[in-house]
Amino acid sequence: MNFLNEVAGRYPEALSLAAGRPYEEYFDLAAVPRYLARYERYLAEERGLAPDQIRRTVLQYGRTKGIIHELVARNLAVDEGIEVDPEAVVVTVGCQEAMVLVLRALRSDERDVLLAVTPTYVGLTGAARLVDLPVRAVRGGPAGVDLAELAAAVRAARTEGLRPRACYLLADNSNPSGVTLDLAARRALLELAEQEDLLLLEDNPYGLFSADRLPTLKALDTARRVVYLGSFAKTGLPGARVGYLVADQSVAAPDGTVSLLADELAKLKSMLTVNTSPIAQAVIAGKLLEHDCSLLRANDREIARYRENLATLLTALATAFPPGSGVSWNAPAGGFFLVVTVPFPVDDTLLEHSARDHALLFTPMRHFDDTPPAAHQLRLSVSLLTAAQVEEGVQRLAALVASQA
Amino acid sequence: MNFLNEVAGRYPEALSLAAGRPYEEYFDLAAVPRYLARYERYLAEERGLAPDQIRRTVLQYGRTKGIIHELVARNLAVDEGIEVDPEAVVVTVGCQEAMVLVLRALRSDERDVLLAVTPTYVGLTGAARLVDLPVRAVRGGPAGVDLAELAAAVRAARTEGLRPRACYLLADNSNPSGVTLDLAARRALLELAEQEDLLLLEDNPYGLFSADRLPTLKALDTARRVVYLGSFAKTGLPGARVGYLVADQSVAAPDGTVSLLADELAKLKSMLTVNTSPIAQAVIAGKLLEHDCSLLRANDREIARYRENLATLLTALATAFPPGSGVSWNAPAGGFFLVVTVPFPVDDTLLEHSARDHALLFTPMRHFDDTPPAAHQLRLSVSLLTAAQVEEGVQRLAALVASQA
Repeated sequence: MNFLNEVAGRYPEALSLAAGRPYEEYFDLAAVPRYLARYERYLAEERGLAPDQIRRTVLQYGRTKGIIHELVARNLAVDEGIEVDPEAVVVTVGCQEAMVLVLRALRSDERDVLLAVTPTYVGLTGAARLVDLPVRAVRGGPAGVDLAELAAAVRAARTEGLRPRACYLLADNSNPSGVTLDLAARRALLELAEQEDLLLLEDNPYGLFSADRLPTLKALDTARRVVYLGSFAKTGLPGARVGYLVADQSVAAPDGTVSLLADELAKLKSMLTVNTSPIAQAVIAGKLLEHDCSLLRANDREIARYRENLATLLTALATAFPPGSGVSWNAPAGGFFLVVTVPFPVDDTLLEHSARDHALLFTPMRHFDDTPPAAHQLRLSVSLLTAAQVEEGVQRLAALVASQA
Repeated sequence: MNFLNEVAGRYPEALSLAAGRPYEEYFDLAAVPRYLARYERYLAEERGLAPDQIRRTVLQYGRTKGIIHELVARNLAVDEGIEVDPEAVVVTVGCQEAMVLVLRALRSDERDVLLAVTPTYVGLTGAARLVDLPVRAVRGGPAGVDLAELAAAVRAARTEGLRPRACYLLADNSNPSGVTLDLAARRALLELAEQEDLLLLEDNPYGLFSADRLPTLKALDTARRVVYLGSFAKTGLPGARVGYLVADQSVAAPDGTVSLLADELAKLKSMLTVNTSPIAQAVIAGKLLEHDCSLLRANDREIARYRENLATLLTALATAFPPGSGVSWNAPAGGFFLVVTVPFPVDDTLLEHSARDHALLFTPMRHFDDTPPAAHQLRLSVSLLTAAQVEEGVQRLAALVASQA
């Protein structure tokens, strides 16, 4: 994504339908000390800590698995109906560190491979490269995951003497595709994971932003097949860089002792970042506490904004590109992203032209997917914009499309 | 170190001369919002940012290399006499992430090896294990590094077809040995690094805590041989989890383009943690700004405490163990740590016995060093204690030693 950042830097006046950062108009610097104070009050009143213990909890080195694990577990119960033992939670430096920890744990030697639903979030691809874990693409398609192709990929890898350890996906409002798996697909995927003895790595930064929310894979996971990857970047505060994972699986060591996967991942974390900033965790904890641990409630304004933006985008696209225009797009149930298919190649050269001549930024889908359809696709994001900016963005996209005719 | 934490957990009443955490009696929760406000004022007044830009800087996703790089560079100039381009600074999630980034960059295939002065900080050993980079020990000895052994190790590795990429060490008040390199040793080490085309990874969390401070390797580094690893955990606030690295070396890519090592490390960071929490960085920045970017000034009370504790420890040891007692120790110039040699084996069984029967915790040196002398050595740390506790700790150590006679 370096090229994208670089283009964005060279054309600062261009309207960005590329950026996936959360809406920032409601950011409030005064909230940070308020959140800190709220968490300190919780430590005193609900946890019974003395002043010196509170000081130490927030300011000293902290527990490797994090200090807000109980609040994370409460949040998952309140917003997602996921009941987890707080001991299975590892608080991480954003979801990115969570991915690195899990992938590093899954790679023991060169026989290990990861499957990932494509188009794939670039952060996953980066984490896999960092830990030298090869990634094999499994087609997502309109249903969100092609189960037959997933099963075939697992078997093909095994036939080659490889160990397919897990399959990574976003089941809700995926980045970059915007696709959501329906309930039947979720159940079928969990069943396949059980049959094929495969872990599922469920990354869920956008699940809160659907009109009709479905249970997460983790909420449906009765066989502990799902490692859940959580982020507070979109729903808490990006500037805290706090994420987490839930890993309630049992792991047997060669000597026969059994431990919790979360504890094994914490050992890796102690070598990677030692612990997640307790101050940053306290900020997120305060926001959770202010809203009875519901981020759905905490984000009511943002959720309304994203829904309005997505509806505006769908309407504006339908107006700008009538049937027969050769331009098509999908209709996500929520989230930040939507994919447009155009009748000409979409690459970094086109992006440069778009930025320069049409003051519009987007993300070529070939950054996420190297199959042929992606070569004619682009991702639009609505998260950082007002509805008026979304409309203006579609006008500029129409001008770009016209320039390619 | 899991066993140490576990023993400490089982004997909470034991006095810990094991913990290397910074002194916490001066921790002040009220300082955190004050630091944040101070940094926000700096962004407005010194950097000319508008309110929405300040909000975005602190609360949104941020620059991969960090947002306080200019203040870090100022701090290095003020406290260490190190002049660096702020663009060569990467702000990291503690020094641990800095080590992981550098070691990951140094490992391109199985021929790469790292040299490390022994006894070696366990965080380095952990980071190397995480990125699959083998570590070869080079004796430190009383001078801090055995240059002849280092040169021999480099050549031996090359003879085996390996690439010794760098040598890791603490030149000041090393953890765990307490040893400091003298000026002549520093110059000779830099010369050797130049001759042998070797990088030096200088980790410096304790340099501020010496009575007579020497120039760091980085301050003497005219040939860009030193990657400097910095920590704010001991001098800023551990709860912020902010560290940094300085990597002003040039790197040539296979296609001939030349870049700054810091920028290559930032690419790896984008896959590891994306960016260091801007809120946490802002806290450290505020502390720096409150003290004109001098952490020497910011830590005057802590520095006095550590010096008094170390002096107390040396006096108490001399009183408890007169000549002929069979117990000896080194005399560090500063820092947190000191190594005691005893006439019996020091292992985890002894630690358990010490915790249970003498209410004393220490760190067996074999956790840092697998050579025979370490088997009879233990590390004492004075950072978390009052002078009275240090004296009490030595009394308990004397009782432990008597029990082994």
